[in-house]
Amino acid sequence: MNTVSIVGVGLIGGSFALALRQAGFAGRIIGVSSPRTIAAALERGVIDEALPLAPAAAAADLIYLAQPIEQILCTLETLDRHLRPGTLVTDAGSTKRAIVGHAAHHIRRGEFVGGHPMAGKESRGVEQAEAGLFRGRPYVLSSRNAVLESWIERIGARLVILDATEHDRLVALTSHLPQLISTALASQITPEAAQVAGPAALDLTRLALSPYEIWRDIFATNADAIEGALGAFIARLEALRAALRSPEMQREFDRAAVAAAALRNLRDPPGPS
Amino acid sequence: MNTVSIVGVGLIGGSFALALRQAGFAGRIIGVSSPRTIAAALERGVIDEALPLAPAAAAADLIYLAQPIEQILCTLETLDRHLRPGTLVTDAGSTKRAIVGHAAHHIRRGEFVGGHPMAGKESRGVEQAEAGLFRGRPYVLSSRNAVLESWIERIGARLVILDATEHDRLVALTSHLPQLISTALASQITPEAAQVAGPAALDLTRLALSPYEIWRDIFATNADAIEGALGAFIARLEALRAALRSPEMQREFDRAAVAAAALRNLRDPPGPS
Repeated sequence: MNTVSIVGVGLIGGSFALALRQAGFAGRIIGVSSPRTIAAALERGVIDEALPLAPAAAAADLIYLAQPIEQILCTLETLDRHLRPGTLVTDAGSTKRAIVGHAAHHIRRGEFVGGHPMAGKESRGVEQAEAGLFRGRPYVLSSRNAVLESWIERIGARLVILDATEHDRLVALTSHLPQLISTALASQITPEAAQVAGPAALDLTRLALSPYEIWRDIFATNADAIEGALGAFIARLEALRAALRSPEMQREFDRAAVAAAALRNLRDPPGPS
Repeated sequence: MNTVSIVGVGLIGGSFALALRQAGFAGRIIGVSSPRTIAAALERGVIDEALPLAPAAAAADLIYLAQPIEQILCTLETLDRHLRPGTLVTDAGSTKRAIVGHAAHHIRRGEFVGGHPMAGKESRGVEQAEAGLFRGRPYVLSSRNAVLESWIERIGARLVILDATEHDRLVALTSHLPQLISTALASQITPEAAQVAGPAALDLTRLALSPYEIWRDIFATNADAIEGALGAFIARLEALRAALRSPEMQREFDRAAVAAAALRNLRDPPGPS
């Protein structure tokens, strides 16, 4: 792998470029982005040079699509004609079914592998990019690919192989449902209630600060799975409401505490000793 | 105010003692607690001496009940006979209607003012007590009292006066509902889903680690208000589910982001410049 083209040099695309460098990638990194972003990316040394999509695609051994979902779908429609045969194409979109399906239709000369690094920050943009963003975080691929898998390991991420439908079902539960919960809760906290809000309310309403622009595409491409997750969650809340005055609640708490602890052990495994 | 008796010298009771000292209280602080807790509290200098409830109550100008709710209810039943007339009695229980109602029935010689400092930590016990625990946090009183109000201000807390019913309705929304949400969500995150869990899932399942012992008394004494908050929250989730594919979602996000931001501005006001 000699040349990587990053399409959309924001927080994720920029961090992937920096992570590749830190992991020992010695080839050329080309950026495709808006003039403002390109200027910032060049100044920070995130990319080596900037090109329009067509020559960037023609030059690349790996194309990394780190745009918003709808733009990834759009790029996939025009990308293939510029690729050398066998070029590896991946993406960093937050939902996978729509993108993987679109790629299957449009990418013929290249090889497409869907990707989703489970990493982020409260602030966006290439100014926030950092080489360590993916370290210790899950990085989902929708199918196996030896080259990508090897780089994902080298940048310190935790490789997870999941087909696109399964990915979308699981992130509906772990990411999209939490966002909707936070949004629903925040809009119920009146100024009167805010007077008595403690750390619990702050923890649970942090996600509600996320701008809708990020979420519009996610809802548009994963509504079925999100509806399923919401329905199951509402059913659990109804079960808790019914158990509020009963000793059954002890078991509900115990089960949830075990799951919450397991989530933490999985995410923060003890280091090598 | 010359003598304060703290009944239940755990995280909250111990922190109140330390906070009083730091705020310039020069009188005597008596602790009423289990032998193990008393030993730790004396060793850390949290209290000056230990006494059983009866002599501690007789000696005090202020009695601070920082036990679990059911134990506060129990203490209120036997406390009055030991009080000197006019002794101020307050508590730190997480719900107020049951306690304030019980106190109205049982406290005749003393004056009872319900209290609820909105402060806590993940770990409990007098070992975790700290003078700054209440700083910047809401501290609710169920009725006005000049002496208590003055100390609450001196320990750096933010005084909020709310009658017991209103308090319980609001904390159902800001504290008890978040706990149930976290418990419900955690128990739905299967090991499979945990593979792709990012910061959102961690943020929203942190409360699910809380032990049920703390919550049993809260549910027992605030079930009505919690049921109301749960019902309204489920209705909001249903509204979001219905809006998932519509532009209405933009307004839902905007409204929630404003509420979440207001919560933060209220809690972290800019310092004096």
